[in-house]
Amino acid sequence: MIEDRLKSLLDDPADGTPSARIVRLLSERGTLSATEIARLTGLAKSTVSMTLAGLRRSDIVIESDHGETVRGAGVGRPATALTLNPKVGTCVGVLFGLEAIQLIVADVSHRVISDRKIQIEPDYSPAEAAAVTRRLVDEAYEEHGLAPEGRLGVGVAVAGPINPIDGKVLRASGVPTWAGTDIRAAFGPVLKSPIFADNESNCAAIAEMMWGAAIGAEDFVFFKIDLGVGGAIVNRGRVITGIAGGAGEFGHMIIDPSGPLCRCGNRGCLELYASARDAVAQAERRLGRPVGIDGLVALAREGDEDSRRKIVAMAEAAGKGLAIIGTALNPGLVVLGGQLSRAGEMLLGPLSESYERHTLVKRAGVAPEARTRFVTGVFTDNDACLGAVGLVLRHHGRLG
Amino acid sequence: MIEDRLKSLLDDPADGTPSARIVRLLSERGTLSATEIARLTGLAKSTVSMTLAGLRRSDIVIESDHGETVRGAGVGRPATALTLNPKVGTCVGVLFGLEAIQLIVADVSHRVISDRKIQIEPDYSPAEAAAVTRRLVDEAYEEHGLAPEGRLGVGVAVAGPINPIDGKVLRASGVPTWAGTDIRAAFGPVLKSPIFADNESNCAAIAEMMWGAAIGAEDFVFFKIDLGVGGAIVNRGRVITGIAGGAGEFGHMIIDPSGPLCRCGNRGCLELYASARDAVAQAERRLGRPVGIDGLVALAREGDEDSRRKIVAMAEAAGKGLAIIGTALNPGLVVLGGQLSRAGEMLLGPLSESYERHTLVKRAGVAPEARTRFVTGVFTDNDACLGAVGLVLRHHGRLG
Repeated sequence: MIEDRLKSLLDDPADGTPSARIVRLLSERGTLSATEIARLTGLAKSTVSMTLAGLRRSDIVIESDHGETVRGAGVGRPATALTLNPKVGTCVGVLFGLEAIQLIVADVSHRVISDRKIQIEPDYSPAEAAAVTRRLVDEAYEEHGLAPEGRLGVGVAVAGPINPIDGKVLRASGVPTWAGTDIRAAFGPVLKSPIFADNESNCAAIAEMMWGAAIGAEDFVFFKIDLGVGGAIVNRGRVITGIAGGAGEFGHMIIDPSGPLCRCGNRGCLELYASARDAVAQAERRLGRPVGIDGLVALAREGDEDSRRKIVAMAEAAGKGLAIIGTALNPGLVVLGGQLSRAGEMLLGPLSESYERHTLVKRAGVAPEARTRFVTGVFTDNDACLGAVGLVLRHHGRLG
Repeated sequence: MIEDRLKSLLDDPADGTPSARIVRLLSERGTLSATEIARLTGLAKSTVSMTLAGLRRSDIVIESDHGETVRGAGVGRPATALTLNPKVGTCVGVLFGLEAIQLIVADVSHRVISDRKIQIEPDYSPAEAAAVTRRLVDEAYEEHGLAPEGRLGVGVAVAGPINPIDGKVLRASGVPTWAGTDIRAAFGPVLKSPIFADNESNCAAIAEMMWGAAIGAEDFVFFKIDLGVGGAIVNRGRVITGIAGGAGEFGHMIIDPSGPLCRCGNRGCLELYASARDAVAQAERRLGRPVGIDGLVALAREGDEDSRRKIVAMAEAAGKGLAIIGTALNPGLVVLGGQLSRAGEMLLGPLSESYERHTLVKRAGVAPEARTRFVTGVFTDNDACLGAVGLVLRHHGRLG
């Protein structure tokens, strides 16, 4: 069956045949021309042509029906845009938030078919999450007439690091009841699908890389400022997970060992200085009403000096923390995510100034193209769930 | 000519033909069996056999004459060990130290042919360095009857970050007169060879990865404690250089923004707390004689309490700095290099305890195979120059 053939081509990352390499590349990139495929795989053009002909005959690859054309490098005429056949493969991304579960269904041509969010009582268990997800998946597939056997996998974004070796949640900062959960055991049997998983920030970085502010960037740092601080490091197009899944936990870099106690048990973590939690809580106490991060940013924009100063202070602390990462990694691009990134220039300005002051390689010391750029992410709200879809398309974080 | 054929196969990293992939892999690894080649390239075994037959016919690949055999995975009988033909390719590594220039000549089967070190007046210029290197190279090639046309390149280890975009030295900490030097322009014409370059610590990490404490480790952090502090990050088998060449500069991560002024112009850099410079200077003042790092370690071993306490203090500071890197990268392996790493357990013990106290992912929280391991490097004296040879073999840091 064609669905099985696609799955088998996608499933084995060690499969070095041209068919498998082209199919995996299209799964990651969505739409490409034959010329781009040759360049990105390093395969000879003749091999690419021959392999694509076979894949098109068997309906695994089709011409993109977006009606869009892409330009082949240096060819000077519109080349045919190719994509995996959306009919033969779908994937699911799920985000387990504090009080909501979001589910996106997309096909292998990178088109979103369904995007739903439902509220759920806080402190829900993994078993409840699995049952709700199962129901949402079934409903979405039925509503859109999708074949369950075309489902390549379910990507799961979790609020805590996941050990890539055993697939267990290390510490579930957002949803503490999940610590120690074996994600594959909890979701695999219920969802009857291969499970891919990573923490929210890594998923968000993948979304920015695939469709957002980091398209085309093979190396960047994603830095998230929300009620907590998190992040991800992308090197040569892959998120660095770390031996235990703990990479990118920028919020817990200790910047003052004699500082206040952090919820992680250490002292003086960056999150205590750079997250929006305290500033939001203080604003809510002062105004006697819910404010949230968006409210804090709105207040600052409307001229509330207290809110503005607090955002600047967070930006300066974040810049100091990022400068340490910068001295270790010297990234070409920093993508700021999380709700506070919606503050835009009010955040970016003091953050990049603070970074410049505290990092080793100064802007003036290098040519413009060797300087670190700072941008805000494209998906501040939807990033982790889209990235969970990306886990499946990029075969990242497969459990078991 | 066979030398030209080897060069052309090695030179184009985008060449995806089986011949080029196998030749590049052998250049990186030295000696491999056909089974290992198939596994590591992802090529079909039949393709590997056919390609190897062609490469052996043209004398580019030969059976290793070490007399050693390696075992093919799961085959149960000794497989033939293959290597690039040492007669057709040689490479040079040069280390520009404070008061000495070291030069190693090796062949493409990873055998060291010549290793020399000569003293030179401090603050020598790049032009002087190039002239001395030229002389040393010519002497070594003549003495060992090597053909200059077989030289694949010269790898240069420099005491300062090198911008991979323009090949210029960013800041030359060890040899300040080198800042801004265009390494290719300074060495290429004089040495009449392709030039590969990176900073000392990145070279040292490459040496540990190719032949030392990190063989087989695709992901690790190299942390060097010497009179300065430096390091390197290796991800999926490649050193991360950073956009301007500044990655791995762990010594200049700011751990106390109100701390003392550092030679880099920032305040409170890790190097001020974790390098051996102050401790050595203090010991030399106290004893009224040259001590050096080896002397400091010897004193501590002989029971000198002051020296021991200072090594422990450096270890604790290094552990704190490494903990920040650990929270960002969660590496599976940390290789300690530099002269102070010769202190062994006296350094490793307090360093790994301090790391454990300050990092996010605690040992008790993860399975043994997901814990960060700490080891000392194999080459504490020779690492950067060997790594400079490795630059050429691995085609890392090619300038121009």
